[in-house]
Amino acid sequence: ALVAALEPLHPADIADLLEQMEPGPRQRLIALYGTEFDGEILSELDESIREDVIASLPPEVLSEAVRMLESDDVVDLLEDLEPEQQDAILEALDRPERVAVQRALSFPEGSAGRLMQREVVTAPQHWTVGDAIDFMRARLDLPEQFYHIVLVDPRHRPVGHVTLGKVMSSDRVTPLIDLQEPSFRTIPAEQDEEDVAYAFNQYHLISAPVVDEDGRLVGVITIDDAMIVLSEENEEDLLLLAGVGDESIADRTLQIVRQRFPWLLANLATAILASLVIAQFESTLQAIVALAVLMPIVASMGGNAGTQSMTVAVRALATRDLTGSNAFRVIRREVGAGLLNGLLFAVIMGVIGWVWFGTLMLGVVLGLAMVINLVVAGLAGVLVPLVLEKIGVDPALASGTFVTTVTDVVGFFAFLGLAGILLL
Amino acid sequence: ALVAALEPLHPADIADLLEQMEPGPRQRLIALYGTEFDGEILSELDESIREDVIASLPPEVLSEAVRMLESDDVVDLLEDLEPEQQDAILEALDRPERVAVQRALSFPEGSAGRLMQREVVTAPQHWTVGDAIDFMRARLDLPEQFYHIVLVDPRHRPVGHVTLGKVMSSDRVTPLIDLQEPSFRTIPAEQDEEDVAYAFNQYHLISAPVVDEDGRLVGVITIDDAMIVLSEENEEDLLLLAGVGDESIADRTLQIVRQRFPWLLANLATAILASLVIAQFESTLQAIVALAVLMPIVASMGGNAGTQSMTVAVRALATRDLTGSNAFRVIRREVGAGLLNGLLFAVIMGVIGWVWFGTLMLGVVLGLAMVINLVVAGLAGVLVPLVLEKIGVDPALASGTFVTTVTDVVGFFAFLGLAGILLL
Ligand SMILES: [Mg+2]
Ligand SMILES: [Mg+2]
Ligand SMILES: [Mg+2]
Ligand SMILES: [Mg+2]
Ligand SMILES: [Mg+2]
Ligand SMILES: [Mg+2]
Ligand SMILES: [Mg+2]
Ligand SMILES: [Mg+2]
Ligand SMILES: [Mg+2]
Ligand SMILES: [Mg+2]
Ligand SMILES: [Mg+2]
Ligand SMILES: [Mg+2]
Ligand SMILES: [Mg+2]
Repeated sequence: ALVAALEPLHPADIADLLEQMEPGPRQRLIALYGTEFDGEILSELDESIREDVIASLPPEVLSEAVRMLESDDVVDLLEDLEPEQQDAILEALDRPERVAVQRALSFPEGSAGRLMQREVVTAPQHWTVGDAIDFMRARLDLPEQFYHIVLVDPRHRPVGHVTLGKVMSSDRVTPLIDLQEPSFRTIPAEQDEEDVAYAFNQYHLISAPVVDEDGRLVGVITIDDAMIVLSEENEEDLLLLAGVGDESIADRTLQIVRQRFPWLLANLATAILASLVIAQFESTLQAIVALAVLMPIVASMGGNAGTQSMTVAVRALATRDLTGSNAFRVIRREVGAGLLNGLLFAVIMGVIGWVWFGTLMLGVVLGLAMVINLVVAGLAGVLVPLVLEKIGVDPALASGTFVTTVTDVVGFFAFLGLAGILLL
Repeated sequence: ALVAALEPLHPADIADLLEQMEPGPRQRLIALYGTEFDGEILSELDESIREDVIASLPPEVLSEAVRMLESDDVVDLLEDLEPEQQDAILEALDRPERVAVQRALSFPEGSAGRLMQREVVTAPQHWTVGDAIDFMRARLDLPEQFYHIVLVDPRHRPVGHVTLGKVMSSDRVTPLIDLQEPSFRTIPAEQDEEDVAYAFNQYHLISAPVVDEDGRLVGVITIDDAMIVLSEENEEDLLLLAGVGDESIADRTLQIVRQRFPWLLANLATAILASLVIAQFESTLQAIVALAVLMPIVASMGGNAGTQSMTVAVRALATRDLTGSNAFRVIRREVGAGLLNGLLFAVIMGVIGWVWFGTLMLGVVLGLAMVINLVVAGLAGVLVPLVLEKIGVDPALASGTFVTTVTDVVGFFAFLGLAGILLL
C-alpha cells in the first residue's frame, strides 16, 4: 500500500524521500518495493547512500532496474561503486550497452566522456528532410529524449546539427545541411565536465555531440545533465569556501567529523600563528588591557572584508568573468574599496574607541589599524585566488585560509604594534 | 576591422569582452559596431553595464537590435531599465510582440511569467502526427527553438505535451495524445523563478508550459533560461553568505563600497558585542595576560566550525534536502560532530596551552572552552538557518552574522569565565 502511495511520485522525489529517512526504515521501504524498484530512483539517489541501497537490492532486482536506464545514467551509477558491484551490473547489460558503458568509463573521471550518452541520432550530411523522417519512422531504438539530428561525414565526424523543429517544419525535399544551426559546437571527450557545463550555460546549448581525438562522434551530452554538473560545481565551490568537502546531508556523524577535522586543524594552525603575533606584544597588553578588549574587532573586520573580496573573486574566476585582461582593474578597485571602507570605519571606530576608553590616542590607533587591515584585506582577497588559480590550485579550496590568516596577522600586528609606539 | 574580427564570436563572448573592458574603450567599440550591433549581445550583458550600453546606442540601432530578440529576452532587457528607456524599446516592437512583453511584465519580478517566452507551438488534443506536421510546415513564425508540441483543450488549457522526436518517429495517423510524455508538468505564472529552476533540475524538464490562474496556456519556459536562474540563485547564496549583495565584477569602486559597507557595519556591531563580553573580564586578563594571547583561538575555531555547519544547512535548505522530516536528525548529527571535534581539539589545544605557558590548568580551561564552543557552533550552525527559513528570512542572507556572533560571544565568555573560576 505504501509502495502504491509512492507510485505517482517522480523517481527524483522518491530518492529524496529515501535520503531523508533513517537507515532502518529506508531498508524496509526498499524491501517493500521488491521487484518494482525503479532504476531511475537509483540514478537520482545521492552518492552517499546509493552504494548502501545498491548493496541491499537483490541481484535480479538490480539488473532489471539497470537495464531500463540510458547509458549515461548507468555510467554515473557505476563510477562510484566497488569493482565487484560494477561487474555485477555490467553483466546484467546487453552487449552493445555494456561496450558503450565500458567505453565511457575509459575516459577520465569528471570528463565529458563520462557525461555523454551513447544514444545519438545521426544522418549523413547529404540527406534530405524526407530521408531523415523515413529513417526515424523505421528505427525502433531511438533515444528516450533527443533534440537534434547530428549530421556526420563519411568518417563519422559531426559537421553540424539540425533541430527537430526545423526538420519538422520543412518540406521533405529540403537538404538537412541547409537547416543547420549556427550555434553548433562539438565537445572533446577528454574535456573537464566543468568546462562542459560552462559551454552549455554560456552558449545556451541544448545538446552537443562529443568527439574523440580523431574528431569522430562518440556520444552526445544533453543540457539536463550539464545543468546537474553546473549545480554540483556551484555547490562544491560554496562548500569548499566554507571549509567543507564533498559532504551530504545524509552523511553520518563520524563521516562529517572525518570530513571537517582537517579543515579545522588547518584553521587551528593559522589561529596559533595569530596568537604568536599577539604574544610578541604581551608587555603592551599588560600595560593597557583595553587593547585585549578591542583587538578582536580589527581582526574580525579585516576577516569579513577579505572574505567579501575573496568570494567575489572566486565566483568571478569560476564564471570566467575575472581574467588576465581585467585582473589589474579588479585589484585596483578592491584596494580602492578597502581604503574607502577603511577610512569610514576608522572614523566610526576611532570615535567609539575614544569615547569608550576616554583616550583619544586609542581611537587613533584603532582607526589606523582599521585602514591598514581593510586595504590589506582587499588586496589579499583578490590576489590570493588569482595566484592560486594561476598555479593550478582550486581557489575555492584554499583561499579562505590564506586570506583570513593575512587579515588576522596584519590586524593584530598593526593594532598592537601601533599601540606600542603611540600609547606607551 | 575590429568588428570583423569579433564576427565569429558568440554574442555571449562579445558581451563578456565588453564587461571586461574599461568604460572608455567599451564605448568606442560599441560606436564602431554602429548598426551592426546584435541584440543578442544586449541580452547577454551583465545588468551592471547593460543600462550604460543601451543608453549609448542610437535609437534606431537599439530598436533594430531588440526586434530580433525572442519575447523572453526582451522582457529580461526591459525589466531593469528606467521607464523612459522601457517605452522607447516597447515602441520599437510590433504590436503582438509588444502586447506579449507587457503581459509578461505584469507578472511579479522574479516570477515564471517574467521568464517565459510567448512563442509556443500548440496543437488541439485530438490532432494526429500528420495534422501537426502539416500545420508546422505551413507556419512561418515558428519559434527559433522548441522541443515539444503542447496539447491544449478547447479552452486553451495544456493537457500534455509531445516531444518532437516522438512525433517525427511515428506514423502520420498516430494520435498525438498517444505519444504524450509521462513527465508533463505545468508551471503557474506567479511561481517564483527559484522554484521553477528547482523543478527543471529535479525533474529534468526541457521545456514546460506556463499557465495563468485559470489554467490557460500563457507561454513556455525552456531549460536554458531555467539553467541561468539556477546559476544566478547559486551565485546569490554564495555571495550572501560572504556578506556581499548583488555585485558584479564590472561594478566600480564606489558601487562596491556602498554595497559592502552595510554588511561590514553589521559585523562591527557583532564584533563590539564580543568586545563587551571581553570587557567583563578585564581584571582576569590583567592578572593573566596569556589569556589575551589564546582567546582568539577559541573564537576562531568556533566561528569556523559554525560556518561549516551553517553552510551545509543553507545549501541543503536551498536544494530542499533539509526539510522538517530530517531536521531533527541533522541537528543531532551536527551537535554530535561538534562534541566529537570539540573533544579532539580540546586534547590538542589543552596540550599546546599547557606546554606553551607551562600551566596545566590553562590547558584544561582551553580544552573545556573548545568543547563548549564547538558544540554550540554545531547547534547554532544548523538551528539559525532553520529558524530563519521558518520565519521567512533568506537563510543565506542573515545566518552568518548570527552564527559567528554566537560563537564569538560563547567562545570568549566560556574561555575567560572558566579562566576566572579555575585559574584565579
Ligand atoms: Mg535528490
Ligand atoms: Mg557521477
Ligand atoms: Mg562530480
Ligand atoms: Mg569538477
Ligand atoms: Mg542523460
Ligand atoms: Mg570547481
Ligand atoms: Mg560570464
Ligand atoms: Mg556573460
Ligand atoms: Mg532579469
Ligand atoms: Mg530569487
Ligand atoms: Mg529563452
Ligand atoms: Mg535564494
Ligand atoms: Mg535534492
